[in-house]
Amino acid sequence: IELEAKNIVPGLDDNTILHAGPPIEWERMSGPMKGGIAGILVYEGRVNTWEEGYELAASGEIKFSPNHDHDAVGPMIGVTSPHQPVFVLEDPKTGKKAYCTLNEGRGKVLRFGGFGEDVLERLNWMKEVLAPALKKAIKHANGIDIRRIISESLHMGDEAHNRNRSGSYLFLSEIAPHLYDTNDAEIAKEVFNFIKKNADIFHLNLSMPSAKLIADAARDIEYCTIVVAMARNGTDTGIQVSSLGRQWFAAPAPIVDGLFFPGYSKEDGCPDLGDSTI
Amino acid sequence: IELEAKNIVPGLDDNTILHAGPPIEWERMSGPMKGGIAGILVYEGRVNTWEEGYELAASGEIKFSPNHDHDAVGPMIGVTSPHQPVFVLEDPKTGKKAYCTLNEGRGKVLRFGGFGEDVLERLNWMKEVLAPALKKAIKHANGIDIRRIISESLHMGDEAHNRNRSGSYLFLSEIAPHLYDTNDAEIAKEVFNFIKKNADIFHLNLSMPSAKLIADAARDIEYCTIVVAMARNGTDTGIQVSSLGRQWFAAPAPIVDGLFFPGYSKEDGCPDLGDSTI
Repeated sequence: IELEAKNIVPGLDDNTILHAGPPIEWERMSGPMKGGIAGILVYEGRVNTWEEGYELAASGEIKFSPNHDHDAVGPMIGVTSPHQPVFVLEDPKTGKKAYCTLNEGRGKVLRFGGFGEDVLERLNWMKEVLAPALKKAIKHANGIDIRRIISESLHMGDEAHNRNRSGSYLFLSEIAPHLYDTNDAEIAKEVFNFIKKNADIFHLNLSMPSAKLIADAARDIEYCTIVVAMARNGTDTGIQVSSLGRQWFAAPAPIVDGLFFPGYSKEDGCPDLGDSTI
Repeated sequence: IELEAKNIVPGLDDNTILHAGPPIEWERMSGPMKGGIAGILVYEGRVNTWEEGYELAASGEIKFSPNHDHDAVGPMIGVTSPHQPVFVLEDPKTGKKAYCTLNEGRGKVLRFGGFGEDVLERLNWMKEVLAPALKKAIKHANGIDIRRIISESLHMGDEAHNRNRSGSYLFLSEIAPHLYDTNDAEIAKEVFNFIKKNADIFHLNLSMPSAKLIADAARDIEYCTIVVAMARNGTDTGIQVSSLGRQWFAAPAPIVDGLFFPGYSKEDGCPDLGDSTI
């Protein structure tokens, strides 16, 4: 874990916000993405209110860039901002790294464009308590072998995207003793219980950057036509191809014909969203 | 957890050893069962050496009785002795209880008839460290809902007999904070790591008594022909039937035609063994 993404994510400066999917300008962004970006500007201390964040984001002052162009990935709107903590995954074979924020859990969360005092409080707690505690524990464990966890979790009913419980439990079983070894017992318990409570989804933000490292191993091979990234920003779906570097090929993102809350239909849905396609 | 089985298992006095399967006298017992019983008499402090234990067991002085006739179950030879700690499972619907020793893990273990300084040391550690620590944690947690754990683990690749990893991880995720809340951090870590190391098998000794409670709910129904217990002692296989109380119906246990170590065959195998059929 790196406590501030800007210290490790290449090209992520104080004035840049990374997002899911291919490149997109503010005007064409979907509602959830605009909402989350306005919110993260409050978290970043750039503004005091969500409304001011919305204005600042619309002003053209903030630079937006796809996660994939900075060795990062993120679920849903996938916002990665300079002062968010990120998991640091490394492929020991290639030496490449991939980054991902920590998962907020279910409910009203920034990655779906949700914002409010509760969302902000949770993000601050994640930065001030969760990430430092986990960072110490992971260091004490000499890193955690996420590929082994994913391998085992796939035999335990996970598909490592919407079903992550086994991965989260396996992560907990690896990290728990180190968490208690390196932190105050109350903090360790708080962190343990947060991950346990969010076992449904916590491990997603570890499996996504792992998948990215696997795909990244196929990048930049001459004449190679393998798709090395596919991602949605809520407006467009884009792909990148091994031999074509950082070039994006984008088309309108489809709308998922899924199960909607009563009174809502496909017409209300946001086009497909997120880096999860990795 | 009850730290000494004799304090809670009905009819288990200082001179009784419970075993898997239907009733059997010393002479007809299989090698593994004789070996484990000789060993547990050392653990019990009745003798100083395994050889003396073997003699004492053969002398007719010790009473042997099936686990199932004392609301207990045990894997393989299934030895339950007066001073071993046991898990106490309760069916909130019927108020019935079922008991099972704690699992030793893989390798050279008493439940396969293994004995030696290492086996004895582990059994003593389980009694002096593991069981008291877990007892405190389980009490602090107001008990652990094992049925919920089994339900979830069945969706995570377990069958709750030879595949218990998910059950063990789920148990760990429930117990860990309570373990650290109620024990010295070094003890909590030691216990956590023992269960994690033995995740393959640890939860078996919780799923077996749970299964027994399910079967026990069908006991003692007039005219009911449902089989409520089936168990092997390494010599015979026996069943008990709902309407026929504690009466056993036994026949020779078959020999499993399984995968043997090089140089060994079915001819070397012990007939089917253990209460796992529950």
